[in-house]
Amino acid sequence: MSFSDSRAILLLSCPDRVGLVSRISHFIYERGGNILDLDEHVDTVEKTFFIRVSWSTAHFSIPASELHDAFSPLAREFGANWHISLGDCRMRVAMFVSKYDHCLQDLLWRHSTGEFAVDIPLIVSNHPDLEPLAARYGIPFHVFPLTAETRHEVERQELELLQLHDIDTVVLARYMQILSPQFVECYPAKVINIHHSFLPAFVGSSPYRQAAERGVKIIGATSHYVTEDLDQGPIIEQDIVRITHKDTLDDLIRKGRDLERLVLARALRLHSEQRILVNGKKTVVFD
Amino acid sequence: MSFSDSRAILLLSCPDRVGLVSRISHFIYERGGNILDLDEHVDTVEKTFFIRVSWSTAHFSIPASELHDAFSPLAREFGANWHISLGDCRMRVAMFVSKYDHCLQDLLWRHSTGEFAVDIPLIVSNHPDLEPLAARYGIPFHVFPLTAETRHEVERQELELLQLHDIDTVVLARYMQILSPQFVECYPAKVINIHHSFLPAFVGSSPYRQAAERGVKIIGATSHYVTEDLDQGPIIEQDIVRITHKDTLDDLIRKGRDLERLVLARALRLHSEQRILVNGKKTVVFD
Amino acid sequence: MSFSDSRAILLLSCPDRVGLVSRISHFIYERGGNILDLDEHVDTVEKTFFIRVSWSTAHFSIPASELHDAFSPLAREFGANWHISLGDCRMRVAMFVSKYDHCLQDLLWRHSTGEFAVDIPLIVSNHPDLEPLAARYGIPFHVFPLTAETRHEVERQELELLQLHDIDTVVLARYMQILSPQFVECYPAKVINIHHSFLPAFVGSSPYRQAAERGVKIIGATSHYVTEDLDQGPIIEQDIVRITHKDTLDDLIRKGRDLERLVLARALRLHSEQRILVNGKKTVVFD
Amino acid sequence: MSFSDSRAILLLSCPDRVGLVSRISHFIYERGGNILDLDEHVDTVEKTFFIRVSWSTAHFSIPASELHDAFSPLAREFGANWHISLGDCRMRVAMFVSKYDHCLQDLLWRHSTGEFAVDIPLIVSNHPDLEPLAARYGIPFHVFPLTAETRHEVERQELELLQLHDIDTVVLARYMQILSPQFVECYPAKVINIHHSFLPAFVGSSPYRQAAERGVKIIGATSHYVTEDLDQGPIIEQDIVRITHKDTLDDLIRKGRDLERLVLARALRLHSEQRILVNGKKTVVFD
Repeated sequence: MSFSDSRAILLLSCPDRVGLVSRISHFIYERGGNILDLDEHVDTVEKTFFIRVSWSTAHFSIPASELHDAFSPLAREFGANWHISLGDCRMRVAMFVSKYDHCLQDLLWRHSTGEFAVDIPLIVSNHPDLEPLAARYGIPFHVFPLTAETRHEVERQELELLQLHDIDTVVLARYMQILSPQFVECYPAKVINIHHSFLPAFVGSSPYRQAAERGVKIIGATSHYVTEDLDQGPIIEQDIVRITHKDTLDDLIRKGRDLERLVLARALRLHSEQRILVNGKKTVVFD
Repeated sequence: MSFSDSRAILLLSCPDRVGLVSRISHFIYERGGNILDLDEHVDTVEKTFFIRVSWSTAHFSIPASELHDAFSPLAREFGANWHISLGDCRMRVAMFVSKYDHCLQDLLWRHSTGEFAVDIPLIVSNHPDLEPLAARYGIPFHVFPLTAETRHEVERQELELLQLHDIDTVVLARYMQILSPQFVECYPAKVINIHHSFLPAFVGSSPYRQAAERGVKIIGATSHYVTEDLDQGPIIEQDIVRITHKDTLDDLIRKGRDLERLVLARALRLHSEQRILVNGKKTVVFD
Repeated sequence: MSFSDSRAILLLSCPDRVGLVSRISHFIYERGGNILDLDEHVDTVEKTFFIRVSWSTAHFSIPASELHDAFSPLAREFGANWHISLGDCRMRVAMFVSKYDHCLQDLLWRHSTGEFAVDIPLIVSNHPDLEPLAARYGIPFHVFPLTAETRHEVERQELELLQLHDIDTVVLARYMQILSPQFVECYPAKVINIHHSFLPAFVGSSPYRQAAERGVKIIGATSHYVTEDLDQGPIIEQDIVRITHKDTLDDLIRKGRDLERLVLARALRLHSEQRILVNGKKTVVFD
Repeated sequence: MSFSDSRAILLLSCPDRVGLVSRISHFIYERGGNILDLDEHVDTVEKTFFIRVSWSTAHFSIPASELHDAFSPLAREFGANWHISLGDCRMRVAMFVSKYDHCLQDLLWRHSTGEFAVDIPLIVSNHPDLEPLAARYGIPFHVFPLTAETRHEVERQELELLQLHDIDTVVLARYMQILSPQFVECYPAKVINIHHSFLPAFVGSSPYRQAAERGVKIIGATSHYVTEDLDQGPIIEQDIVRITHKDTLDDLIRKGRDLERLVLARALRLHSEQRILVNGKKTVVFD
């Protein structure tokens, strides 16, 4: 799935009705667009329609800049939540980290290989530890030490920084703080977390310890959008690895690190390619 | 993915061009069809377009019986390979078996639960061993003993039997004979085999023995359409299971049985729901 | 791992101390036994030692019938929980079922192929539905209808029946009733259940519905020993399968059936080959 | 499985006979060693015995330095291939690379976290590209440009360098050259390669291209010991990932990179912890 500049992607959900695919594809066709990928899904219980279409704008009859306005009447008629993104407009992502480096170093390395079509203008942390890692990739690193008293003020400053840099998406790459509802509200379905368990098992702190105590034979990692409710947001991606009675807590942590890296990287990739729609407490992922 | 009677499915491939999705979805929309599922794929190397659309015919403006003729002009214009199937028209499947029962008993049990929307009018075997199993599910069992001399004549009789029963698809559920090119030609992309290895590794006979000798750490099973070339047909589905140095050849056979059953069942399900298009030596599987 | 008659298996756990492997293997060696398999594990947190040894008794210097008494002094010295089983003495297993047939039919078919070195003298159910399936394999089927009032008396009768048939192990093959603590107490680490979720996620009823509502991307099945606490017993085996937003509740149930069958079959196999030791709320599985 | 200094590990294989476990464990016991882990395996076809025992030498009655001599008589009697390693003696590993960085950067990062109990005194390459990566971790990087004419002489120099640094093990982290039999001979079962396919499928060059052309539904990676025969050495570890018709060759390469990193890291870990014994063309892996 390479990602080229002369491409547009429509991501849309609306109440289901007859003719949606036909009318949307006709909109593209009559303007000379060539559909490259189309995925649709109907939630037959909720009667909701979901679609992702990408098309080549190489021979499109209207400029990309007018696309949004051109599609608006149709979207309004459908009562849709929708977003059109253009291939030459990269998502802007801020990473939030604490002290663990495994997710950050993996994401930055992947980014350096071109795996993610995003810009990473800045990294935020409540600790200075990972500054050298950020420096190696030339990314500005902002330290905001946190105490219970300063949390409110710090989050205000962080939001200001994010807005200053036009940040679209926040990735919590093992950020060990809980964001306030006020913060989360500013980035709905835009804050991606990695939780080191197979949710909904082992919510909260020390999931590997909980897993070791329960004696499970498989551990997991879960990437999800952050909502007000801790570890309850819509799940984007999960994966697992087998363990045995021989594995100590340290082994779980080590094996889990590999999972966390993979699952968070896949989630960011899916998100950055506009492949995810939220459906209530769940996601539709057009993979 | 339940499968109801008032549904039509179009499976189509053709050279790629602008407007295919739009024109196909418009064909359905203008006749009052409500699209339930649409999957499309473009092979950008071969410039080939693949689509599967299913729609509700509950409020369709033309009778299902006229659908084929109504769509023909469009298909001709596109230069398409295509097939429309109707929800109330079940695929007719013949099973071919030899002496191993694990695949057959699993498929028949699944069929009894309604997992496959097919009819199984008959079972063919070169041995009488599995007749009691067929009898338990009330399916006629035809024994055709085979020798090198009679092969040609036997296949002729088998084909006659299949044609007599309007068979669409043949499932080789561990059938230990190689079909002649003449036979295969009569059922292009309609004969489904299960090979007990992770193809293309361990082609031919005794793949578990080959795997044990090579010392692999994972074994697999592969379901594919049968072509003239042994074990070379388009792959439909594969799966694997881990093994260790402790596993003997008997263990491989036992673990492999579970894989074979699962992989063949998934392949038949995908095929019976019209989810597979052949693309040269490969498949497009709209899962 | 074939299982032959002239074999003995020792399964033992005790407080860890120096020399345990040496003294146990010496016990076997000096009587002419040839060790075929030896697995040991030390829980370094709880300081507990676990071992499974199997050896050939073909040239053993004492009769198998005297083995238990011969080993007793050593076991006493170690303060061990232990059990010696002989290859020609098959475990006796009772199946408990309700209306779902997928686990029972799979276990009985596997048993017919020789996968489990056990006898199945009887099947117990609170419904008559699966009697024909039991009959097909020639296994006596006992129906005990249950009401809230009769539960206590019914369990008493069931226990009597199990004792009458020298039952070692009870397999709950989707038995939809909760056994009383009094019943469970009679078969400690001898009642094997299959729960259709990835425990500890989705405890209790309708786990597939819970999974569908939570929007997980992976579902699981868990086999565990039954204890007083519902779905909290030591886990024997787990496995998982991927799902997507396309999968309806019916798809989860269908995909889950395959998992339940596999996981329960593996658990019974491990148990019947004396490969499992309970370690508090967890298991040591010598696979 | 943490790895501490006051530990010894015996890795041994020999023709099977009665009493091996007893006599080996007795050797340890009578010198005051406490067995921490013991794994054994008997290849019943080849009649070969394999064992790995690790024990605490904290209260051992002889100095570690005398252990080798003390055990020699027993080993001679058994006709054994054997090796005793001591916890405070770290394996010395040289990495060989070409231009791809994904395996090297992953191994070096893992090494920096302490995942491997090895020293990495040097990195060898036929290209200068990865020198900055090596520099970041402070590891000397030696460039040996290669031509068909210089190959023989270059390998001689490389071997000299390896011997100078007491290298035990060579890891080919996507080294794109084929080592000569003379080189391989110097490090029998000591050169670890990662091949980017599920061996024995897709031997040789461009395995991802071969996989894309064959239309497999699963790709893999294989780590193995290098022998004279290309891609035919004893397999240490394999893993796989699912692909679909949507995945282009670039997607296979991207997904495969994650596999290669994981599989090679696991292989090095197993090797460095003395968990692997070669059994003809296969391995016994005590995981």
